[in-house]
Amino acid sequence: MIVDKLAIVGTGLIGGSFALALKQADAVGEVLGVGRNTAKLTLARELGLVDRAVDWSEAGQADCILLAVPVGETESVLRRLAPHLKAGAIVTDAGSTKLNVVAAARTTLGGRFADFVPGHPIAGSEQSGPGAARADLYHGKRVVLTPQTDTHTDAVTIVKALWQATGAEVETLDAALHDRVFAAVSHLPHLAAYALVDDLARRADGDTFFRFAASGFRDFTRIAGSSPEMWRDIALSNREALLAELDAYLDALRTLRQAVSDEDAAGLLEIFSRARNARENWMKQQDS
Amino acid sequence: MIVDKLAIVGTGLIGGSFALALKQADAVGEVLGVGRNTAKLTLARELGLVDRAVDWSEAGQADCILLAVPVGETESVLRRLAPHLKAGAIVTDAGSTKLNVVAAARTTLGGRFADFVPGHPIAGSEQSGPGAARADLYHGKRVVLTPQTDTHTDAVTIVKALWQATGAEVETLDAALHDRVFAAVSHLPHLAAYALVDDLARRADGDTFFRFAASGFRDFTRIAGSSPEMWRDIALSNREALLAELDAYLDALRTLRQAVSDEDAAGLLEIFSRARNARENWMKQQDS
Repeated sequence: MIVDKLAIVGTGLIGGSFALALKQADAVGEVLGVGRNTAKLTLARELGLVDRAVDWSEAGQADCILLAVPVGETESVLRRLAPHLKAGAIVTDAGSTKLNVVAAARTTLGGRFADFVPGHPIAGSEQSGPGAARADLYHGKRVVLTPQTDTHTDAVTIVKALWQATGAEVETLDAALHDRVFAAVSHLPHLAAYALVDDLARRADGDTFFRFAASGFRDFTRIAGSSPEMWRDIALSNREALLAELDAYLDALRTLRQAVSDEDAAGLLEIFSRARNARENWMKQQDS
Repeated sequence: MIVDKLAIVGTGLIGGSFALALKQADAVGEVLGVGRNTAKLTLARELGLVDRAVDWSEAGQADCILLAVPVGETESVLRRLAPHLKAGAIVTDAGSTKLNVVAAARTTLGGRFADFVPGHPIAGSEQSGPGAARADLYHGKRVVLTPQTDTHTDAVTIVKALWQATGAEVETLDAALHDRVFAAVSHLPHLAAYALVDDLARRADGDTFFRFAASGFRDFTRIAGSSPEMWRDIALSNREALLAELDAYLDALRTLRQAVSDEDAAGLLEIFSRARNARENWMKQQDS
C-alpha cells in the first residue's frame, strides 16, 4: 500500500485507468471520485474505477489527489480543491503541458505548492470516458514528472511510486524542456495532421481527393481523429513552445519547397535519407 | 487467358506481384522478365515471379509489357524498348505520377503511343524487391488508369482486364487530375513527414526529442520510412502539382499558427472539428 486514500478528479480514460491499475497492484486503499459530470462519476463507480463519489471537501482529505481533467481546466479545479486540502495531501496532474500547469498551481495553491507534483503520462487512446479505462493502459509507457526546485522530495517519491505501480517507467524532466519536446513530437504533429485534412475538407472537390487517399494518408492523419476540444486546450496551454515549433516546421517545409522548385534532386535525397535514417534508428530504440 | 506473353520491366515488389497474381489467375501464359539488375532478375526467376529473363528485343515481342520501374526511369526504359515493339504490343506502367509518364511515352513511342496505357496501382509496402512480391498485393486495392484521347480503347480494355484479374478495382481518371489528387493525398504527406523527422534529426539535442516520441509520432512519420530515391523521383516527376499542394499546406499551417498566436480558441476548435469530422466520414467510407 503506497497511499491509503486516493482521489481522482476526472474519472475518464486517464484517471480511471490510473485507479484501476493501482487497485489491481494493491497500491491504494480507497479510491474517491470527484468531478462536475455526475453521470460520468456514476458510471465510474458502477465500473469499479472508484469506490465512492465525493464532493470537493471530502476529496481534499485524500492522501493523494490526481487531476485527470482537460489541461485548460486545471486552474479552476485547483481553485475549487485548494481550500479543502488536508495537511500533507499530495496533488498531482496528468496534463499534456507543464509550464502552464505549474503556473496555475503556484497561483491557486500558494503555500501548498510544494506538495504539487506536475506529471504527464505518455499514454492515451482515441477512446475516452470511464468505459475506456483499462488497468494496463500505462504498462510499459513513460510518465514524465517535472518537479520544481521547491517541490517536496517526499511528494515526488510517492507520485513516482504510484506511477511505477501502474507499470509505467517514470522520468524527470525540466518543465520548459518538457513543453518544447512535446510541442515538437506531439502537439505540432497533431496540428499538422488537422491542417492537412482540413485543407482537403474545405475544397469544393474534396470528395475526389479523399476517394483516392490510402494507407499512407490514413496513418499520417490518424491523430486528426483526436478530440478537438482537448487539442484546442493543449495548443493554447503550450502556445509559446508550439509557435516556435510551427515556425521551425514552416521553415523545414519551405526548404523542401525550394528544393522541389529548383529541381534539386541531390538536396531532396539528402533530406529524405537523413529523415529515413533518423526514423529507423528511433524505431530500433523503441523495439529494444 | 487474357494475354499469352507478358513482359515485366523491373521485377520487384510491384512488377513481381503483378506477375504472381496473373499467373495464379491463369490470366497470362508466359511471363518474361527484363531489367538492368541481373541479380534481381535471377532472384525473380528463382522465386517463380518470371519464367525467363530476356533482353529488350525479346521483351518487345510480348503481347503486353508492364513497366514497374522508378518513375524517373520511365523515359529511358521506353527509349530502349521502343525499337523492339512488335505490332500491337501494349505497353503500360505502374508509376505514381502520370502527366510526366504520358509526356515521356509520347516522346519515345511516337506513332506507337496509342498502345500505351498509363496506370497507377494504389498499393505498396515499405518492403521492396522480388522477395517482397505477393500474389495478393493488389487484392481489393485501387488501380487508376489515365488513358489519353488517342489511346486505343482495345489496349485500355486489356490492361483493365489484367488488373481486375489481380483482384484490383480499376478506375479511370484524367491524368492532370490524377497528379493533383495524389500530390495532395500522398506526395505532400510524404514530404511533410520527411520534413518533420529531418527537422528533429538536425537538432543538436534531437535525441531528447526522439526519446519522448510516442505512437502518434510513429504513425504520423511512418511514411518517412519510405525509399528516399523513389520519393525524390516522385517529387520531381509531379513537381507542379506538388508545389501547388505545398503552397496550400503552408497556407493552412500559417492559418493555424495565426489562430494559436491570437489565442483564437473558437477558430482552433472549428478547424480541428471540421478535420476530425471529415476524417471520420472518410474512414466510414473506407470500411463500407
